[in-house]
Amino acid sequence: MADFWVTEAMNGFGMTVQVEAELCRRQSKYQKIELYQTKKLGRLLLLDGIIQLTDFDEFAYHEMLANLPMFAHDNPRRALVIGGGDGGVLRELGRHPELETIDICEIDEEVINVAREFLPEISCGYDDPRVRVHIADGSEFVKDKPESYDVIIVDSTDPGGPGAPLFGEAFYRDMKRALRPGGVIATQAESPYLLPEIVARLNAVSKRIFRSTGYASIMVPTYPTGMIGACVAGDREDVRIPARPIPPELARQLRYYNTELHRAAFTTPNFVTRLLNA
Amino acid sequence: MADFWVTEAMNGFGMTVQVEAELCRRQSKYQKIELYQTKKLGRLLLLDGIIQLTDFDEFAYHEMLANLPMFAHDNPRRALVIGGGDGGVLRELGRHPELETIDICEIDEEVINVAREFLPEISCGYDDPRVRVHIADGSEFVKDKPESYDVIIVDSTDPGGPGAPLFGEAFYRDMKRALRPGGVIATQAESPYLLPEIVARLNAVSKRIFRSTGYASIMVPTYPTGMIGACVAGDREDVRIPARPIPPELARQLRYYNTELHRAAFTTPNFVTRLLNA
Repeated sequence: MADFWVTEAMNGFGMTVQVEAELCRRQSKYQKIELYQTKKLGRLLLLDGIIQLTDFDEFAYHEMLANLPMFAHDNPRRALVIGGGDGGVLRELGRHPELETIDICEIDEEVINVAREFLPEISCGYDDPRVRVHIADGSEFVKDKPESYDVIIVDSTDPGGPGAPLFGEAFYRDMKRALRPGGVIATQAESPYLLPEIVARLNAVSKRIFRSTGYASIMVPTYPTGMIGACVAGDREDVRIPARPIPPELARQLRYYNTELHRAAFTTPNFVTRLLNA
Repeated sequence: MADFWVTEAMNGFGMTVQVEAELCRRQSKYQKIELYQTKKLGRLLLLDGIIQLTDFDEFAYHEMLANLPMFAHDNPRRALVIGGGDGGVLRELGRHPELETIDICEIDEEVINVAREFLPEISCGYDDPRVRVHIADGSEFVKDKPESYDVIIVDSTDPGGPGAPLFGEAFYRDMKRALRPGGVIATQAESPYLLPEIVARLNAVSKRIFRSTGYASIMVPTYPTGMIGACVAGDREDVRIPARPIPPELARQLRYYNTELHRAAFTTPNFVTRLLNA
């Protein structure tokens, strides 16, 4: 197959990735799943045409989405991942021996199947014996889990797809009820360059519900605008400040997250700060 | 003219921007200059096919490249811009009443002409009466300017084009001689995701020559990888820490730079820190 380019475009600009071969194309009950071998970036996963990850830069997103809430908490024992069917967040959580249970609630089993078949270095997160898989709608799943988790991570698609309920205020209130005292959430919170109204709304919702909220920037080259945010929130004094040091054996494995960057990621450009205070 | 897309690609991925009309295409003595009206991002300037700026996000790059060295210095009076023919860095320097002179040394007069004709909101930087324009090779210009500047800013193209001499160690040593005591430089220092070897080399060169050096990340969506770095250096205790507060009238004009972000921008992901310490 000759080289070609896969492009994700929105609002007049986009990302384009050179690919060598299509490895998989499936229509699941929820979305179109595409997987490509790229020329320079390893493998590329798209859902409904939206770039989910490449081998090249997935570490940035997965490390931050997992470790920001894990280190905002002083003693996390039970974690829940909503979405994140590829397994990348699970892999990062698996590096934490302090976790006793790691639940994942993914709506689309086919995403897990594709990741297990084609993305072994990401889906290896499922191999951890602490992981329990639930195939369900995350917005329903959290409703009957009162005081069950220390950390909830929402690794969702954009608001347009099957992840739409994960961007509503009701879901944030349900997550709060599913947290144990002092629990922390982290959610995929879009880019202020691309979707400023969503960044502002998620932050406003979180501020109404949680004692402390912050928006962290993560530099991910293959996402449109080259970055994405995490909304981190909890009933703690300040989720923007790590509650504990990184164990040295974990620090050696990390390519992106560190303690200083935890604080720095929440320091926003003025135009973002104005959105968050609106 | 029907809508079409302009793409800058390198190393297997790239940025693509939807454009409505080509406004200008000129071959200067040094490079191909193209200017487009885009669908959503205002105007787009390319030099030899490489995206230089869009109206949408140029504030992020220009504010940081100008204000990082300006606030790393406690009392800047004389500034020099090398490259930056579009005028964006000049415009940001013009917001500083403490500057007495603002020199710019641009090799390609045609870039200035195109900017003045088609990018009035950027090239307005030239209207400041403190600005003096020198059409010359910046690497030659600094050689006979001993102890002349408090701040030198290098807003260059990539190492492949006419800006190539601006990435060499000799040029950094010449800049050091052109600085007055306590002077600070800031240079366009590429992306560690895209050109890690250049990030590492510029940082190593700066460390050999200056007392203090730092690499700051700037989130610029339309640059490949969505970010770019500034190498900031000087014979000061620590250029990563602002030496003075932002005057309130300036702070109100800024959309990106702030005092906390100055420090935070120098806090790097682990893979970048390892490059800088290599």
